[in-house]
Amino acid sequence: MTTIKDSVHDHISVEGVAAALVDTPPVQRLRRVAQLGTVTYVYPSANHTRFEHSLGVYHLADRALDHLRIEGKQAERVRAAAVLHDIGHAPYSHNVEELVYRYTGKYHDDVGDLLDTGPVARTLADHGLNPDAVADLVAGEGQLGQLVSGELDVDRMDYLVRDAHHTGVPYGTIDTGRLVRALSFVDGDLVLGEGNVQTAESLLLARALMNPTVYSHHVARIAKAMLRRATERLLAHDGVDAAELRRMDDYDLRVALRECPATAAYAHRLDRRDLYKRAVWAEMAAVPDEVVDADHEHRRELEREVADAANVDPDAVVLDVPDRPSMPESTSRVLVNGEVRELGAQSTLVSALRTAQRDQWRLGVYAPAESAGRVGDAAVRTLGLDTDDTRVRDVRPGIHATLDEFQ
Amino acid sequence: MTTIKDSVHDHISVEGVAAALVDTPPVQRLRRVAQLGTVTYVYPSANHTRFEHSLGVYHLADRALDHLRIEGKQAERVRAAAVLHDIGHAPYSHNVEELVYRYTGKYHDDVGDLLDTGPVARTLADHGLNPDAVADLVAGEGQLGQLVSGELDVDRMDYLVRDAHHTGVPYGTIDTGRLVRALSFVDGDLVLGEGNVQTAESLLLARALMNPTVYSHHVARIAKAMLRRATERLLAHDGVDAAELRRMDDYDLRVALRECPATAAYAHRLDRRDLYKRAVWAEMAAVPDEVVDADHEHRRELEREVADAANVDPDAVVLDVPDRPSMPESTSRVLVNGEVRELGAQSTLVSALRTAQRDQWRLGVYAPAESAGRVGDAAVRTLGLDTDDTRVRDVRPGIHATLDEFQ
Amino acid sequence: MTTIKDSVHDHISVEGVAAALVDTPPVQRLRRVAQLGTVTYVYPSANHTRFEHSLGVYHLADRALDHLRIEGKQAERVRAAAVLHDIGHAPYSHNVEELVYRYTGKYHDDVGDLLDTGPVARTLADHGLNPDAVADLVAGEGQLGQLVSGELDVDRMDYLVRDAHHTGVPYGTIDTGRLVRALSFVDGDLVLGEGNVQTAESLLLARALMNPTVYSHHVARIAKAMLRRATERLLAHDGVDAAELRRMDDYDLRVALRECPATAAYAHRLDRRDLYKRAVWAEMAAVPDEVVDADHEHRRELEREVADAANVDPDAVVLDVPDRPSMPESTSRVLVNGEVRELGAQSTLVSALRTAQRDQWRLGVYAPAESAGRVGDAAVRTLGLDTDDTRVRDVRPGIHATLDEFQ
Amino acid sequence: MTTIKDSVHDHISVEGVAAALVDTPPVQRLRRVAQLGTVTYVYPSANHTRFEHSLGVYHLADRALDHLRIEGKQAERVRAAAVLHDIGHAPYSHNVEELVYRYTGKYHDDVGDLLDTGPVARTLADHGLNPDAVADLVAGEGQLGQLVSGELDVDRMDYLVRDAHHTGVPYGTIDTGRLVRALSFVDGDLVLGEGNVQTAESLLLARALMNPTVYSHHVARIAKAMLRRATERLLAHDGVDAAELRRMDDYDLRVALRECPATAAYAHRLDRRDLYKRAVWAEMAAVPDEVVDADHEHRRELEREVADAANVDPDAVVLDVPDRPSMPESTSRVLVNGEVRELGAQSTLVSALRTAQRDQWRLGVYAPAESAGRVGDAAVRTLGLDTDDTRVRDVRPGIHATLDEFQ
Repeated sequence: MTTIKDSVHDHISVEGVAAALVDTPPVQRLRRVAQLGTVTYVYPSANHTRFEHSLGVYHLADRALDHLRIEGKQAERVRAAAVLHDIGHAPYSHNVEELVYRYTGKYHDDVGDLLDTGPVARTLADHGLNPDAVADLVAGEGQLGQLVSGELDVDRMDYLVRDAHHTGVPYGTIDTGRLVRALSFVDGDLVLGEGNVQTAESLLLARALMNPTVYSHHVARIAKAMLRRATERLLAHDGVDAAELRRMDDYDLRVALRECPATAAYAHRLDRRDLYKRAVWAEMAAVPDEVVDADHEHRRELEREVADAANVDPDAVVLDVPDRPSMPESTSRVLVNGEVRELGAQSTLVSALRTAQRDQWRLGVYAPAESAGRVGDAAVRTLGLDTDDTRVRDVRPGIHATLDEFQ
Repeated sequence: MTTIKDSVHDHISVEGVAAALVDTPPVQRLRRVAQLGTVTYVYPSANHTRFEHSLGVYHLADRALDHLRIEGKQAERVRAAAVLHDIGHAPYSHNVEELVYRYTGKYHDDVGDLLDTGPVARTLADHGLNPDAVADLVAGEGQLGQLVSGELDVDRMDYLVRDAHHTGVPYGTIDTGRLVRALSFVDGDLVLGEGNVQTAESLLLARALMNPTVYSHHVARIAKAMLRRATERLLAHDGVDAAELRRMDDYDLRVALRECPATAAYAHRLDRRDLYKRAVWAEMAAVPDEVVDADHEHRRELEREVADAANVDPDAVVLDVPDRPSMPESTSRVLVNGEVRELGAQSTLVSALRTAQRDQWRLGVYAPAESAGRVGDAAVRTLGLDTDDTRVRDVRPGIHATLDEFQ
Repeated sequence: MTTIKDSVHDHISVEGVAAALVDTPPVQRLRRVAQLGTVTYVYPSANHTRFEHSLGVYHLADRALDHLRIEGKQAERVRAAAVLHDIGHAPYSHNVEELVYRYTGKYHDDVGDLLDTGPVARTLADHGLNPDAVADLVAGEGQLGQLVSGELDVDRMDYLVRDAHHTGVPYGTIDTGRLVRALSFVDGDLVLGEGNVQTAESLLLARALMNPTVYSHHVARIAKAMLRRATERLLAHDGVDAAELRRMDDYDLRVALRECPATAAYAHRLDRRDLYKRAVWAEMAAVPDEVVDADHEHRRELEREVADAANVDPDAVVLDVPDRPSMPESTSRVLVNGEVRELGAQSTLVSALRTAQRDQWRLGVYAPAESAGRVGDAAVRTLGLDTDDTRVRDVRPGIHATLDEFQ
Repeated sequence: MTTIKDSVHDHISVEGVAAALVDTPPVQRLRRVAQLGTVTYVYPSANHTRFEHSLGVYHLADRALDHLRIEGKQAERVRAAAVLHDIGHAPYSHNVEELVYRYTGKYHDDVGDLLDTGPVARTLADHGLNPDAVADLVAGEGQLGQLVSGELDVDRMDYLVRDAHHTGVPYGTIDTGRLVRALSFVDGDLVLGEGNVQTAESLLLARALMNPTVYSHHVARIAKAMLRRATERLLAHDGVDAAELRRMDDYDLRVALRECPATAAYAHRLDRRDLYKRAVWAEMAAVPDEVVDADHEHRRELEREVADAANVDPDAVVLDVPDRPSMPESTSRVLVNGEVRELGAQSTLVSALRTAQRDQWRLGVYAPAESAGRVGDAAVRTLGLDTDDTRVRDVRPGIHATLDEFQ
């Protein structure tokens, strides 16, 4: 047994298949993939990695299995899935995930192909575990898959507290010890025991507060959009293919962007934190449906139209349209007065989160500081935005501001 | 200048009128008044006092005044009010507040009479401050009164983080540094600056989560109801009058309850944590309006009726009916896109809190373990409870449980 | 199994004999005995109790037993000793311990008589445990007694981190998780495994830093000396005997001191934090051996002589002479290169602690502020102090100062 | 004014020259230089960077200036020095510092040439600051230089708490607030005020505990030695010169090591955490003086001799000989009884640190796991080690172990 010191969970004991998997190259690679990608431009302390997060998820999974009295091969399978759940992440985690998906058809939790070869496959085989069964758990399938990837999963428990610890934003502080102790299976479904409505609410509310403050902070979104744009160019110009990209680490990608002529300018800006500014920042009510729902090609076209209208280089306009909030009614299950109830039906706060997510949605158009004014005006016209609800141009400087100037 | 080490805010520098007031007996008395009263029966670490809380409130007020660039006598008045804001608390803080109010007409923030005499009056006079003006601030009146007692006040900011620190429950962790930095006055009203919708939400959501988990935990409510009942008997039997009670500390009251024959049995139970159990725990929908709205006398009568019906001693039934949730639309003000908006109108989550408060309301009937079954049955009949929504009798033992068994 | 939320160790699971003992009156009484007595006059947040500390000691003992794979009755005995280890404390913990000892011959860890009767005895019997064997463990006897009371015991591990958490002084932050994991038995002795010289050093250094900063801070010592003096008077005048005193809680003692005419003045001062000041504060080199080694009667006599010489009331002089530092060579054992070595021989830092303790020793003479000057002069003459090394009279005000003015 | 959220100091306000300097490329580059280099191989959470550390040092310097009432240009100079103090670091901070020094004659605090050109020079000029004066402060020269680089400097205060926060090792938790408040200038020297012997001790003891546990943990030392060896090869083979190396970031260096054929094997091992093992780990008493004092060339020669004797490839032997501990008597000054005293003379604990440092010194010889046995035997003979005090070969596996197996 090996003990690893973690800044969040203190001591993490690793043994069995988990200890063996931690030593494999695909897991060690996660040491060089930032957990929060470009969020570090807003919160400079947020340099933690997918590696330590994976150890944390393993630790909480192990605690939960212990609590649920699940043992043997079934438990080892979950532990393996916990350690491996993020090996499908491309560099900078979610930042280029969509891009990789467009080219390879794979999201980060589609790891089947990564478990079938090399040291990971050998390690699973040595411990008598079926790689497909582990991949299914990573994808959230089956009863125990809910523990690894579901509404009450240990992944979310770890990242909320870890991101809070490293950004310094206190909203992610949930009671993981209580959450794990409250888990039980009722008729095959993962359920929180009696008296845990608030425990479940706290998990969902923590995410609702961390989202605009950390994960979707406009500075992180701008840098992410620039990184994504640059990476797209890299794939087009450099002979790097998307399958290779998926296996790079942050170091590889960053240096590749610096070295490729088509992307060097973006890399230079990212290195100096010389980021684009918001030319437009619009609430959903201000944005025509056809813009919200535009597909990738359509968005690229709209960017070019805005650039034309503003008479700037196409590289000087980045359109950033988040997906429509898709949060379904929360189906987390909680025991209340002896009955299993869905949290969305039981909790007024949680049911309000669907609307809140829509309230927090923002379309962004970004441009270099010197042309942000022109681009903003052009974008409002070209995209047909309702200017009553649109904020055009970020006029305030303070580029490091974590106290978000407007939203 | 004196520096005091605090477990929450680290170093607190005290000077001027605040330093002088800290040394007065009414403030020193707060060293012996527990901040959370009977909550320590649930969370054994929660032994912090009104004294350290008052220092914390002073500290945050001082930071806010500094940020708002308020100086001179106006600022000293606020600092004085911050130090003094809790000197009107009776022993065990809110636990016997209603009782004191019934006898004296004074709630804890009605401190005018306490500022008019003795060392406090002399200290205020020495610093050229008008006691009535300070009392008004404590009562939340005027523009600066909002800072001391209002929806965004420094009182709440301190108690949430302090109660989280001492109970170990993480939900109260708000970002006080950001809250204080976001404050400004717009047209005479305290307002949070642009980009702080989440900052404001976090404050209200933290309270919404701390409330059922900590402040209204059923074990704390049971002990509080027993303490209140005993203190009521003490006033009736012992020659202690309510004005004296209001000036006692926890030590005086606890020893008085032990020594008075009419209350010694309650004191003995409290000393040994031999608490009554829930005979009934009912959601609002299950309780007839006339029970919810019964006044003090009517409630005592209902208790006696339940005791009769259950054929137990009247002392063996305690009826605990919280006030109807009265949270108005949140009128905290936040700047959004340059406009002052009310948080209740802007934030879906905050507007959901009104309903959530109603969801969390519970009527309790408590009785000694051995008669809880009979009392529960009698109470359901006598009070006319709808048994579909009523939980009768706490059948589980685990009396220290902080993992609330049912709710 | 019951789970208790603790502000230091998060969740503590209690079961078996420990769960039953927690509910007994002698353990519940510890809820009303402050862990650090008068230290709260310096660090206002330090209001934690012997009760939560006892739970913490139980928790660490339980972790250590688990790690050492000790099970069954032997383990239950240690768990019982951990829960009960502090029930022998008089009110205000160590503050009146010497006084109780002079009258009853019992220090706080001499608990044999308390385990022989009442609910504790019945609970031990119910679980088949011998009270004498448990009392031996509390006194540190036998192999497993080292775990409960010894140089590497879980008592110290808990109090250092708990006192740091509650005072806000960071020096007590040791790595309890690593300490517990490093324990093993070698030839019947508790030993820290390879690579843990620093782990052991950290424990001893933490105490060396906490001692002058917290435990022996001069303001805490002054208040303690006043409390001890008052309690001594109470025993002399009031019909309270020392056996009763030993079973009181802080509430009883404080109210008794207020009500007894011979002690009311002291109680009044303590209530208002109107403490004596240092008239003398002298390093060991300045103090004649016969003063350092004076017994109780001799010290009382010296006090009277100083009062005479200063022409003040005998109550206005308190002489506070700590015992000579008695720290033996540290005999904590650590594995180094496969050999069991004594820490005192292995660690230069630890061997320096003996001298450091002597450096930190101070004799105090305390008096009311207005007579501190006269008393100081008289004490220097009467006690024969070497004025080169003596500080006479604390001239600075700042009575709440935690930033110790001189030492 | 810009406010930055930091995980250690919470909110850091940046303005004036500091705000302008933070935006310059040499400071932004520090976002990509790990604070603790290879320590992350032992403590996976230790991914914090020189950038956030520099902000922290600025913050503490600003607090100290405020406390010392130093204002105007003199203060701006110190703030500039604080922000810039680490821009001279090569990739992986101290890991390749010696190597850069051998080639360029510059240690990391020799930054004169970096302040003379480009945006940093322009920014200093814009604020009327002389670059040479700022460089002198970074080098610790002059009265205020002691604040930036000296025994009581804010650099050390920040890194101890920051490294503790990110590794999870609690020993670095010092009281920065009290340290800053205790600073004063007496006759031109930085001195800690009365009553701060323990405050000063805590700073030095914290470093003494963090050193073997974190900074010189054997796994971090092994990885560092491998990185240093590889970088040395890179300079020899690749046309990268030392001046370029000094300006690279961690990303550049890591990718360069992967791409250069002479270093790819080392890079591959570092990427997979497939580290060499200890073949020898020897206390100072076991090592002949001529080995301890061997210069660079001699050490390389000894490595080759060991490889020959063991009949392995020269790349398979890494000799790691730390400098002799050079800690002078601590000259930190503290006020004691009104006199300025040197801490080394006043504090028994601090004077013991010199010896302790020697106790902690270890020579290491590292080799691939499969040849560590042979290399160990050969090294003992070739280097003339005294085998009584030498540990040959790390026989235990647990390669992630933070619970150091032996030392």
